[in-house]
Amino acid sequence: MTSEKSKNEICARFQFIIPFMIYLDYAATTPVDPRVLDAMLPYFRESFGNPSSVHRYGQKAEAALESARETVASVLHCRADEIIFTSCGSESDNLALRGAALASGKKRILTSKTEHHAVSKTAEQLEKQYGFLIEWLNGNEYGEVMPASLSKALSKDTALASVMYANNEIGTINPIAELAALAKANNVVFHTDAVQAAAYLDVNVEALGVDLMSLGAHKFYGPKGVGALYVRNGVKLVPHLTGGGQEFGLRAGTQNVPSIVGFAEALRLAADEREQRVAHVKPLRDQIIGRVLEEIPASKLTGRPEKRLPNHASFVFKDADGNFLLQLLDVAGFACSSGSACKTGNPEPSEVVSALGLSRDWALGSLRITLGVDSTVANVDSFLKALPVLVEKSRNLNHR
Amino acid sequence: MTSEKSKNEICARFQFIIPFMIYLDYAATTPVDPRVLDAMLPYFRESFGNPSSVHRYGQKAEAALESARETVASVLHCRADEIIFTSCGSESDNLALRGAALASGKKRILTSKTEHHAVSKTAEQLEKQYGFLIEWLNGNEYGEVMPASLSKALSKDTALASVMYANNEIGTINPIAELAALAKANNVVFHTDAVQAAAYLDVNVEALGVDLMSLGAHKFYGPKGVGALYVRNGVKLVPHLTGGGQEFGLRAGTQNVPSIVGFAEALRLAADEREQRVAHVKPLRDQIIGRVLEEIPASKLTGRPEKRLPNHASFVFKDADGNFLLQLLDVAGFACSSGSACKTGNPEPSEVVSALGLSRDWALGSLRITLGVDSTVANVDSFLKALPVLVEKSRNLNHR
Repeated sequence: MTSEKSKNEICARFQFIIPFMIYLDYAATTPVDPRVLDAMLPYFRESFGNPSSVHRYGQKAEAALESARETVASVLHCRADEIIFTSCGSESDNLALRGAALASGKKRILTSKTEHHAVSKTAEQLEKQYGFLIEWLNGNEYGEVMPASLSKALSKDTALASVMYANNEIGTINPIAELAALAKANNVVFHTDAVQAAAYLDVNVEALGVDLMSLGAHKFYGPKGVGALYVRNGVKLVPHLTGGGQEFGLRAGTQNVPSIVGFAEALRLAADEREQRVAHVKPLRDQIIGRVLEEIPASKLTGRPEKRLPNHASFVFKDADGNFLLQLLDVAGFACSSGSACKTGNPEPSEVVSALGLSRDWALGSLRITLGVDSTVANVDSFLKALPVLVEKSRNLNHR
Repeated sequence: MTSEKSKNEICARFQFIIPFMIYLDYAATTPVDPRVLDAMLPYFRESFGNPSSVHRYGQKAEAALESARETVASVLHCRADEIIFTSCGSESDNLALRGAALASGKKRILTSKTEHHAVSKTAEQLEKQYGFLIEWLNGNEYGEVMPASLSKALSKDTALASVMYANNEIGTINPIAELAALAKANNVVFHTDAVQAAAYLDVNVEALGVDLMSLGAHKFYGPKGVGALYVRNGVKLVPHLTGGGQEFGLRAGTQNVPSIVGFAEALRLAADEREQRVAHVKPLRDQIIGRVLEEIPASKLTGRPEKRLPNHASFVFKDADGNFLLQLLDVAGFACSSGSACKTGNPEPSEVVSALGLSRDWALGSLRITLGVDSTVANVDSFLKALPVLVEKSRNLNHR
């Protein structure tokens, strides 16, 4: 299969407007599945009512909203009234942390340095603004939070523990069921950020045993601007947005019906097609990991080799400049991501990569490749042909 | 023109799926303008990038985001970096109030009982949770907050004053420029909720002199789930959503690019077509007001007769049951709204209607009719023919 052909192939389902650009950044965001967009479209104009209105326009919108809530609840194995729709995964994290901490009357927050900023920065704001104490849970060399670490830190004064289901930067899957069970045994509210996990892992809250779980649709082929927070019945939260009393009083604002419908449809599809999707991306991921480690000298996988997201490969390259490598890849036609805060011109490695205990000459050369349902063998081949040369370039021309 | 013909007429532009139902509740929400939806569509699948990504998918999304910000800024007569995109008008209000109050180091909040709950309930939460003192500004019989009332209340310890531009329930337009000038003279941050106003009034922040202004797209033919807060350069806010540092550090979360593009296009169209839209709805509104007061005994207009939203007519009917009237109207094919919290089964009149000083036998019989760009003379005629009989029914059969 030729490379031109392969690059054209990704247009088969999602018509990308950037020609000959291979997208390998599905952890950053995904295109909306055409089936999801189709489900959303009637709610922009035809069934446009405000779900809080009494009349039939309102009733129709409310019915769509409540049907979406039922769908989400059935995927999560929970009650519909335990689902709070929000505007994104970050808002769900904010509502979970700030909501549970402020409602608790307790003073300690347990979380880790490998969390998404929506969790870690929110914990820091709670510390700074309200005097909470953060206890940072240690991760191992794979960025994994082990039960022993949580067990040691739990106390009567713990307001909540928050550990992500799967890491966005390094793909590591945390042992959530074990962590949640420990928290439960100590009567501590347990939150997990499942924003990255929901695309490929089971999000059954009964099996996981979590009290709070954050989701964001645009990571699993749903629209941007809509998220959800699972709130176990009985868990107390201080509302984050006050006003009209929507979402059981926890999240004011007219519900975004089209996007909520899209959220539910995307989550349903992710659950229904999980097996096929995993079967599609996992061999591609394994090919990337195998060949990169084999063909690129001074390369290391970051995160767990096995217990990692099936679409996620992440590396560090010694003495390489990760930001420059991204630019080289972009020019060569590959859209990837780095662990570092590249956009801000920050030359420091990300907190997550730093937390792995890597030395600076390794940590600055990070790269993340995340696959999607449209990724092909040919795409991956093209990428793997280009990468070694570009890594070398980023070593020779590195800007440090 | 026959009534059947008139009812069909509204299908000309927006294809409603509820046949023969006349929508007169544009203040609750509006259908998305087809031109706005067209502007949004490319950002769901083709240009789906995350604006924070470095590669070209990200750059393209970021360009769309920043172009939308420029468009909004040009309508508001402000700088692009003074526009913060949020998930709705309620979130904008929450960010404005909580953000400014917590950043101020001061203790008093000035606002009125006629504000939307996103303002009044947020003020109350600030009082309850943080010990702020709310001073409720008195409105006159039209629910209008007069400069003298603000002037008397301003003090050195005032964190902010918040007065809505135009009232959602009774249509009254407040003298925002005068109120903002008074606040400015006293070095007090001034916020206005312009969620209802933006569809028909000028939202030039220079002319208004406000420091903070909330907008929500779904009130002016934009999508649900997107809002904006104007933040005058130099005004300090504590961020409401913490995490990835988006929106100048004030609002974390991957930006909702399609909806933000839709917000900007809808606002641009509202500004460009303002004159024609006002010219279309105002005579219809005046016809409603004139005929209702003339033909229905014991009826009163609520809110200002003159300085009111051009698409807004609101009434109280003595001894009528407002909630029951709404249901009768719905059955008869008219989607309207009431001032009271009808959905919750709350039999009390709304705070807004109560603030007008009406006795209970009047206040419980409230009705709001709000027009849109597709409302027709024939629609209004049908409505005005049906209304007197239904008001009488709601009086005879009232449930109190």
